[in-house]
Amino acid sequence: MYHPFDPISPEEMRAAVGILKDKFKGIRLRFNLIDVNEPIKEEAIPYVEAERLHQELPVAPTRLIQCLFHRVDTYVFMKAMVNVEERRVDWVKEMPKHVQGPADIDEMQALEELCMTHPKVLEEKEKLQLPEGVDLCCEPWIYGTDDSNEDRRLCQCYLYLRPVDHEQTNHYSLPVSFSPVFNSVTKEFVRMDYLPTGADTKTGPTKPWKPVKAVEYAHDLLDEPLRKDLMPYIVQQPEGPSFTVEGQLVKWQKWRFRVGFNHREGLILYNVTYDSRNLFYRLALSEMTVPYGDPRMPFHRKQAFDVGDVGLGVTANQLALGCDCLGYIKYFDGFRIDSKGNPILLKNVICLHEQDNGILHKHTNFRNNAATVVRNRQLVVQMICTLANYEYAFAWYFDQAAGIQFEVRATGIVSTIPVDEPGLSVPWATQVAPGVMAPFHQHLFSLRIDPAVDGYKNTIYYEDSVPLPVDEKLNPHGIGYGVEKTVIKKAGPAKTNVDRHRVFKIRNDDVINTVSYNPVAYAIHTVPSQMILMNEQSFNTKRAEFAKEPVWVTKYQDDELYAAGEFTNQSREDTGLAKWAKRDDDVENSDVIFWHTFGLTHNPRPEDFPIMPVETITVDLKPSGFFTKNPALDVPRSTQSFNKSVLVTKSEDATCGC
Amino acid sequence: MYHPFDPISPEEMRAAVGILKDKFKGIRLRFNLIDVNEPIKEEAIPYVEAERLHQELPVAPTRLIQCLFHRVDTYVFMKAMVNVEERRVDWVKEMPKHVQGPADIDEMQALEELCMTHPKVLEEKEKLQLPEGVDLCCEPWIYGTDDSNEDRRLCQCYLYLRPVDHEQTNHYSLPVSFSPVFNSVTKEFVRMDYLPTGADTKTGPTKPWKPVKAVEYAHDLLDEPLRKDLMPYIVQQPEGPSFTVEGQLVKWQKWRFRVGFNHREGLILYNVTYDSRNLFYRLALSEMTVPYGDPRMPFHRKQAFDVGDVGLGVTANQLALGCDCLGYIKYFDGFRIDSKGNPILLKNVICLHEQDNGILHKHTNFRNNAATVVRNRQLVVQMICTLANYEYAFAWYFDQAAGIQFEVRATGIVSTIPVDEPGLSVPWATQVAPGVMAPFHQHLFSLRIDPAVDGYKNTIYYEDSVPLPVDEKLNPHGIGYGVEKTVIKKAGPAKTNVDRHRVFKIRNDDVINTVSYNPVAYAIHTVPSQMILMNEQSFNTKRAEFAKEPVWVTKYQDDELYAAGEFTNQSREDTGLAKWAKRDDDVENSDVIFWHTFGLTHNPRPEDFPIMPVETITVDLKPSGFFTKNPALDVPRSTQSFNKSVLVTKSEDATCGC
Repeated sequence: MYHPFDPISPEEMRAAVGILKDKFKGIRLRFNLIDVNEPIKEEAIPYVEAERLHQELPVAPTRLIQCLFHRVDTYVFMKAMVNVEERRVDWVKEMPKHVQGPADIDEMQALEELCMTHPKVLEEKEKLQLPEGVDLCCEPWIYGTDDSNEDRRLCQCYLYLRPVDHEQTNHYSLPVSFSPVFNSVTKEFVRMDYLPTGADTKTGPTKPWKPVKAVEYAHDLLDEPLRKDLMPYIVQQPEGPSFTVEGQLVKWQKWRFRVGFNHREGLILYNVTYDSRNLFYRLALSEMTVPYGDPRMPFHRKQAFDVGDVGLGVTANQLALGCDCLGYIKYFDGFRIDSKGNPILLKNVICLHEQDNGILHKHTNFRNNAATVVRNRQLVVQMICTLANYEYAFAWYFDQAAGIQFEVRATGIVSTIPVDEPGLSVPWATQVAPGVMAPFHQHLFSLRIDPAVDGYKNTIYYEDSVPLPVDEKLNPHGIGYGVEKTVIKKAGPAKTNVDRHRVFKIRNDDVINTVSYNPVAYAIHTVPSQMILMNEQSFNTKRAEFAKEPVWVTKYQDDELYAAGEFTNQSREDTGLAKWAKRDDDVENSDVIFWHTFGLTHNPRPEDFPIMPVETITVDLKPSGFFTKNPALDVPRSTQSFNKSVLVTKSEDATCGC
Repeated sequence: MYHPFDPISPEEMRAAVGILKDKFKGIRLRFNLIDVNEPIKEEAIPYVEAERLHQELPVAPTRLIQCLFHRVDTYVFMKAMVNVEERRVDWVKEMPKHVQGPADIDEMQALEELCMTHPKVLEEKEKLQLPEGVDLCCEPWIYGTDDSNEDRRLCQCYLYLRPVDHEQTNHYSLPVSFSPVFNSVTKEFVRMDYLPTGADTKTGPTKPWKPVKAVEYAHDLLDEPLRKDLMPYIVQQPEGPSFTVEGQLVKWQKWRFRVGFNHREGLILYNVTYDSRNLFYRLALSEMTVPYGDPRMPFHRKQAFDVGDVGLGVTANQLALGCDCLGYIKYFDGFRIDSKGNPILLKNVICLHEQDNGILHKHTNFRNNAATVVRNRQLVVQMICTLANYEYAFAWYFDQAAGIQFEVRATGIVSTIPVDEPGLSVPWATQVAPGVMAPFHQHLFSLRIDPAVDGYKNTIYYEDSVPLPVDEKLNPHGIGYGVEKTVIKKAGPAKTNVDRHRVFKIRNDDVINTVSYNPVAYAIHTVPSQMILMNEQSFNTKRAEFAKEPVWVTKYQDDELYAAGEFTNQSREDTGLAKWAKRDDDVENSDVIFWHTFGLTHNPRPEDFPIMPVETITVDLKPSGFFTKNPALDVPRSTQSFNKSVLVTKSEDATCGC
């Protein structure tokens, strides 16, 4: 009934909740996450291989539901593995005291309300002497970690002002300099932090607010008139889209894959094949971290792990037709659990559509001007997540030359802090509006690639382009160059290298390309990026060792999906790659995993405020001797009768030979 | 009548030819290049400033026509500067004997015909014992340079077989192992080179051809059936495009610029302003070099300088509506001179159109799901050039957040050489078909940026993101980071640095941003690339010093436009950046030029054959404190009524609040 890679259904959610409630009769439970547990790969492979080869399907892998929850009485954090079909709990584990589960939406909402009505907060608010109509706004933040060995589940509430009662007024424009800390469990007020508003660590008592105009982005609230000269641009697909969808299964231009979805990772691609050849077993963003570069208390703890702390699935926007996506759109839904155990529909969280990306290949014979042109039609699978102030759009693009591209776009609103003195220069922030600084920060992403390049045992290697030695006979002019191949034999990190034009590849040692005589492979075009800037001894780095190195290679094990480990909320160390990569596993010609850390050091500019034009980073996965020739030769030529372009002026049309 | 930046007209061409013929009465002349000489910047600035400020126009800069030609009797290479309006020759210069002008189309055509009919070639052809219907094909190549101090203007003709009589049969699939060298001037046969067909320098006599099937790309010639499941994707702009064009002047979404065109550079952007503020005086690809990594004779001389050796303007494709471009297209024409002095129309060599590039900015207030979405409409100006086997698409993208992107796409056909032994491994090439190797090579581009960031005196600097020192009080956890700024004070090269996240910026020291309190600036997002691999002592590197360093800064001087110098054909040294950058000029707060070398080390894969899926590189130019906030706030929101997207299934539409 369910494909092994199908996301959880509301029925399964309700069933799991019921089973757990039965087991814990009389004890109130608070649900944090309920999702399908990743199938055991050893069981899943025969199943998807039988599908691929159109053979009789074996028994499906056991489908288990993982549940994270708390006992409301003790607030012990628990994990259970539930077999819904057989109505039993396989096991339950109590997490150690200091391990925090991810934040959940109900919890954050409750904290927001608590904060806004708490006497200690109202006391500070009084001191602001706010004019009529201006109100406080609370943004609960994951507390983070420092060396205080904090076992409590805490929440740092950053506060802002809402200058008008409009649903999109930009409170980030008016940050306030006091910030309460609450105990998320007991709801106790822990302390009031005061934010430094100068260039040093000095803080002060709350002073009356000096009114300043907020910098708004919502169209209703703009001072300036809107542009009137943007003409409509409409994409039509009169014969419908070129893709087909059956449940979670997508087929398009020889591609075939399943769209996965869960609370934590959001969009996952499973079982990606091209022309029935295996390429990737699983592709997903495994973690990300956004550490801030302002060293002062409380900002030293400001480090978001948006996948592990909260989840991309639960923060994915419910997309709207014609606003987010252009053309002929297919949407996928998902479900999350609320704290009471009710399944909540997440409608339209993943979108699927085509786009045209210019020319794919072209050649003109200069002698006679005869030309072949083929356009680059791509398939896009995308989700857009809102993490408080920030938005991230994560997209996968498929092309007809068997290339895949992972794209991250950052937009939304940079995190802001208050500053008193106009024109004050601080090393770690940019002034983006009167009274507002935007601190420097990094966005570091870990892309987890579980390859299956023509099969399930692969080898990772890299090629560097290097000069050949000067040789009197062969290379007298010193212009020859070749490639140095290095196979990665042991688990561990690896470095990118621009000066040597290092290219990482994943090959299948047992399948030789009949044209190039080399093992078939895919190249992972890594993005050389600045790694995490924070000191090795800092918790920021200890919690995110994945962010120290651009490439990690590990040997596959079930349950090793998340680069910084399973529980990142208030974590003290990286329980992910930091551990797995030290295992000294042999990884050559094995079930190997490739993890790529890439990112952006973001020192905000005024143009990023009040809302940020997208910053885009892309990672390309391209065949490298996987095929014996260009796999897109059979894409029909680009013609005017097909494309129906229009000439702007009344000069004679050029007629092409196509 | 002409704007200073207008390309040459056919009338001016005919006039210049007439004037020169008068001057050289009785002497036959052979024309190589006739184009508008770059206006003297000191004269042009007041003119374009008056335009920008809507003031009375001063006298236009003197418009001079530069002419490159030969006397047919002596074949002396000459350059003249002609004032067409005043019907006089300002000066004529004889070039030194070893200086070669660029190749011209008539010359290449004549050499091709000569080669195909020459007895020495026919003699070798006999030995091939070609079956009926299979013919030779000749591709004349720029001779290049080695240490032979060659003064003659030579041409290396690489030969291939045409297996069928079809206008697009892929002769690159059947390279032949003899290659005649001709004297382009005297048309004399110089020698027959034999290509090494193994892994060493050994060559041999021409042997009978062992028939092998060519790998074709033209749709008529494919064995495989075409894909039938690609549905049409049509872009409609029912209210027309958002741009306006008057002559060469383009206006779009607060952008204003002039499209320039000439024989050598092809597409040039002049006088780029946003919202009437100066940004860039001139933007163009100044040179490129493609050195090959096979060290053996004659390949050691294989190094294309496609801008200087031939010209991007003259090799630009005459684009066809609906094939090359999608949507609502405006074309620009150009003109070139033929060897007899006739202007030849180059129709539709530059195209202009809009495209949609996804989301530009988005934010959702998570509390109430109210969202603002704005889409990323871009303006594209593009040319596609065919350089024998290769195609390069050069495009400029403008966006509504005042960003500009320069994009290079390489496609077409990789250069091939013959190989005898199947499966032979050579260090410097990939086997891409039976009997065919594709040698490794680099594509290195020099983008010349002549900035005018809010004015004509700018400073270039770079910012590195670096950790702040651990400080017990301020930075006890070692997590703080800041930016180190380095101003470039002297002309010369500079390095990129990924580990420090180095960002180059161009600022105006005299215009301070009222929000950030820093000088207004634009960031040039350099692309860290492997620089030229060839030995420092090789001619490949001596001729292209621009390819040794990723960034060069020089002080503007008229006539310093081309990174490797004016005449690259068979050049012996770089007469461009290599000289100008050593001048020890002070460049801070001056008329400064920024040159960026970036590229791709291309070790072909089988998938690049017989025609290559595009490889794309982009350089972003983005405001960095040029504006006081996001300049795209006033772009209307993205709405379904505007975009008219279609839902694929019959589930209920999500309605957005937009």
